[in-house]
This record gives sequence, C-alpha cells and structure tokens, in this order.
Amino acid sequence: MDKLLNEIKSTAEKVRYELDRLLPVPKTSEKRVVEAMRYSVMGGGKSLRPFMVMQSAKLFGVEPERALRVACALEMVHCYSLIHDDLPAMDNDDLRRGKPTCHKQYDEATAILAGDALLTRAFGVISSEKCQFDPLTRCQLIYELSKAAGCNGMVGGQMLDILAETTEDMKLPEVVRLQQLKTGALFSFAMEAGAIMGKADSETRQLLRSYAKDVGLAFQISDDILDVEGDVASMGKAVRKDLDAHKATFISLLGLEKAKEQAKQLTEHAVKTLESFDEKADYLRALARYFVERKS
Amino acid sequence: MDKLLNEIKSTAEKVRYELDRLLPVPKTSEKRVVEAMRYSVMGGGKSLRPFMVMQSAKLFGVEPERALRVACALEMVHCYSLIHDDLPAMDNDDLRRGKPTCHKQYDEATAILAGDALLTRAFGVISSEKCQFDPLTRCQLIYELSKAAGCNGMVGGQMLDILAETTEDMKLPEVVRLQQLKTGALFSFAMEAGAIMGKADSETRQLLRSYAKDVGLAFQISDDILDVEGDVASMGKAVRKDLDAHKATFISLLGLEKAKEQAKQLTEHAVKTLESFDEKADYLRALARYFVERKS
Repeated sequence: MDKLLNEIKSTAEKVRYELDRLLPVPKTSEKRVVEAMRYSVMGGGKSLRPFMVMQSAKLFGVEPERALRVACALEMVHCYSLIHDDLPAMDNDDLRRGKPTCHKQYDEATAILAGDALLTRAFGVISSEKCQFDPLTRCQLIYELSKAAGCNGMVGGQMLDILAETTEDMKLPEVVRLQQLKTGALFSFAMEAGAIMGKADSETRQLLRSYAKDVGLAFQISDDILDVEGDVASMGKAVRKDLDAHKATFISLLGLEKAKEQAKQLTEHAVKTLESFDEKADYLRALARYFVERKS
Repeated sequence: MDKLLNEIKSTAEKVRYELDRLLPVPKTSEKRVVEAMRYSVMGGGKSLRPFMVMQSAKLFGVEPERALRVACALEMVHCYSLIHDDLPAMDNDDLRRGKPTCHKQYDEATAILAGDALLTRAFGVISSEKCQFDPLTRCQLIYELSKAAGCNGMVGGQMLDILAETTEDMKLPEVVRLQQLKTGALFSFAMEAGAIMGKADSETRQLLRSYAKDVGLAFQISDDILDVEGDVASMGKAVRKDLDAHKATFISLLGLEKAKEQAKQLTEHAVKTLESFDEKADYLRALARYFVERKS
C-alpha cells in the first residue's frame, strides 16, 4: 500500500509541475480567472484520475512523458466539475480539500469562469501538436473525453444527483446509474485513454472500461461509507451531508455491512478483469484495493 | 441587405436542423439538462457566428455540408457563454431573445450544467469522424476554438467585463481589449475556421482575423449604440443597463457621433481587407455593413 501511495504522490507531483506550465498567469487583469483555475487544479488533490491515465498508458508501453498531458487535461476536467458542483446553486459547499472552495476564495462569477476555462483548456491541451500523438489519436481522445464529461456522462450524472435531492424512494439501480455517470464516466475515460494512446483493440478497451466501472462504483460506495464514518479533518470537506439530506446512498439502500461487502466484491471483480496483464498492472490492482480501504 | 438577411436566415435554419440532430433528447431523467441545452441553442438566435463560418468556408471552396458541423459547434460555444453570462452571479439577466433566460426557464443549477454540457459537446462534435475533415484539420479547429473561448479569449474577456463594473476611469484601449477578448475572439475563430478547413496559408488566415477584429469591434460599438437607442421589444433583452451601471462604453468614452464614425471606419477597413477575394466574399462585405446598420 505504501508503494502505491508513493507512486500516486509522485505522479501527482509530475501532474502539478506540468499543470504549472500549462496554465501560465498573464500580466493583464484577467489573470484573476487564471489564478482561480490554478488555485483549484493545483490545490493538492490526490490526482487519482491522472494516475489511472498514467497506469493505463503503461500497460501499452506508452512513454509517461507523452501520456502526462492527457492526464493533466483530465485533471482539469475533474477540477472544473468540482468548482461548479461546489457552487451555491449546486451543492453549496464551503470546503474542499481542507481549503475554501473556489467561489469562497474568489467569488461566484470568477468560480464559474474558472470552471469554464479549465474545461475549455483541457480540450486545447489534447488537440495541440505538443500532445505528441498523431492527430487521429488526439481526436479519439477528445471525442471520448467529450462523451464522458458531457450530458450523457458526468454532467448528466450531476443533473441526476440534483434531481435526486427531491426524489423520494430512489431505488438501487437508479443510484448505480447516477454514480456511473457522475464519477464512473471519467474513470472509464482515464482507463480507456491508455488503450487509445497505445492503439489497443476494442476488446482491450472494453476490458479497461469494465475495470473502471467496478472500481468507480466501489470508490463511490467507500465515499458513502466515509461520509458516515469519516470526519471533516481527514476528509477536508463537509461530511454526513447525504445522511442529513435523507438522500438515497448505497448505505441507506443496502445497510453499512452489505455496502462494504458489495464494495469488496466489485474490487475482486476488477482485479480479475486485469488477469491477462502481467506485473505492469500491479499498481492498478493495488489501486482497486486502496479504493475500498482508504480513510480519506 | 434583404438578400443578406435571407441568406443569414437560411443558414440559421440549416444550423437549427443540424443542432436538432446533434442534441437528441434521452428518455432518462437527465433529459432535463438536454432540454435546457436545446432551449438555449435552438432559441431563435440570428446564428451570426455560424454564418461567418459558412461564409469563410465558401471562400476556400469547402462544401457547406462539411462546414456545417463546425458552425454548429461554434454556436454551442456562443450559447453556453450566453447562459453563463446571464446567471445571477454574472450579469443577472431575466430576458434573452425575448424569452426567459435559461436559469429563469429552468433553474440555476440546470443552467450551469446546460452551459457546461454545450461547451463539452462542441469539442466532441468537431473531434468526431462525422466531422468530415482529416484528423489534423479537426485538431487545428479544436486548438483554435479552445484558445478563442478560454481564459486568454472569451472567458478572459468576461472576467474583464466583470472587473470593469467596479473599475473607475476605464480608458478606451482597455475597453477595446475587453471587447476583443469577449466577442472578438469567437468572431476571429469563425472567420479563421474556413481558412483552416480550406488549408489556406497563414497570410490568408491573418487577413481573415483582421476582418473579424474590425467587424467585431464595429459590432460591439453598434451594440452600445443600440443599448442607448434601442428598446426592449426589438432587442429582446434589457437595454440601457450599461448606462445605468455607469459602465465605460464606446459611447461614454467617445460620444455617440464619434462612436458611429468609428464604427463606419472599421467597417470600411474590414471591407478593404477582403479586396483580394472575388464575389465569393460579397456576403461578408454586406455583413460588415449590416453590423453597423442593424436595428436589433
């Protein structure tokens, strides 16, 4: 586990270094929005999605230097979604990663624009010649990222999440679908990105999507568990919000024990999916286990 | 002028038809966000930016059917920016094109998500194989669109616009720069898009950017004039907001007569820029004149 955490940390540092280069602060007044972008994207997140991109790239022998920009673009998309999700009109959160959320640190207008600009920049980063993949590969990455992040993916999931607040009696399949869109879609992109960069066949791409689907759901279940068992200090954000809002979660639907059991089963299935890969997939196997064992 | 307006209308209809195909409504609950996207992007705007894409494409013999998707993607980006600009935390507008703004028709959270999803979809549309350009051209279009729409383009301009509300004594060069980012950047993309699709040389691309810069500024000056001289009925949105907010505009800085003179000079310069093109550029010449003569 320590080895995994060190590797995640090392990747996060590389991502941070590259993001610093990708988001230079202009000298003119609009620098305020760039500062807000940097505040959010370089704010010390674990960079799990970039880690997944780098590890899936490794499976196909893609050089890390080349995969890094794609990893950074994905982190930009993830962080834009956090900025917008935290807004007063959405989840209205004041705290993120132990620091004021973007609209608290700056203001609502700046936060909306910072999110917009991060999303916009992400696609620019992948499309650029400096993203050293052939143009067709770049197009495929952009196409899949757009699909994963858009109204049939992450944004659709966030829409469902907002509607869920006023929906009584949500059933398990609906909660599963909500989470698969809201967090699962970007996880799937992270895993598939390596296969696209490495020009793997569609069967392999499907395999990696299946892994992502399992660990994404396990990740969300453990999120629900941490929301109940965790504290503000180690989580760096508000806890027990779902419980207080009487929102349907995996725990309210399954009970704590059954939810834990389900998370474990998903993890084992994810690990089994990677059977055909050799030791290059060891970090991904460890990651799947970490997702359900983490404390924050 | 009638001929131009008919051509603009005909393009708007084609764009609307294609947008309808590009944004199918799902059967599941997240359809709410897709409906909000469609409400905004198919809400009867003039589609001036798509018109510019189609006309610049014509200069280089690009088939209209192929340019149409790029035109639609640009309209998505433009409409996302309107949705977010209208939000309470930004300009707080209730009326757009004579109808309730997106957050008034739906709610704030849905409007934020609809904007996000339109921006995301725009890049997906261009990256797709169905956008019948070679992958390198698609990447170049995405790269330029990201640059024009991001923190060093449109979003940067919107940031400046928000800061301008609390800035006293703004000078003309600052207002010019603000407008060049806020509206000029997308205009430039619209004109350059045709050159990219038609694989024109960099000199020609520069020429079209120069035209866009001129007409973009003339467009903004005439917007300021309409804000003073127009009425809510013909504009379909609130008027005299800038005046009431004591915001620096071309009129407050130059006076009405000098502002009109400036707009005319920019128009003539824009028309002159197109000198080297034959009658294929006639609509673009007419468009430049229309921008300063329009009544809404």
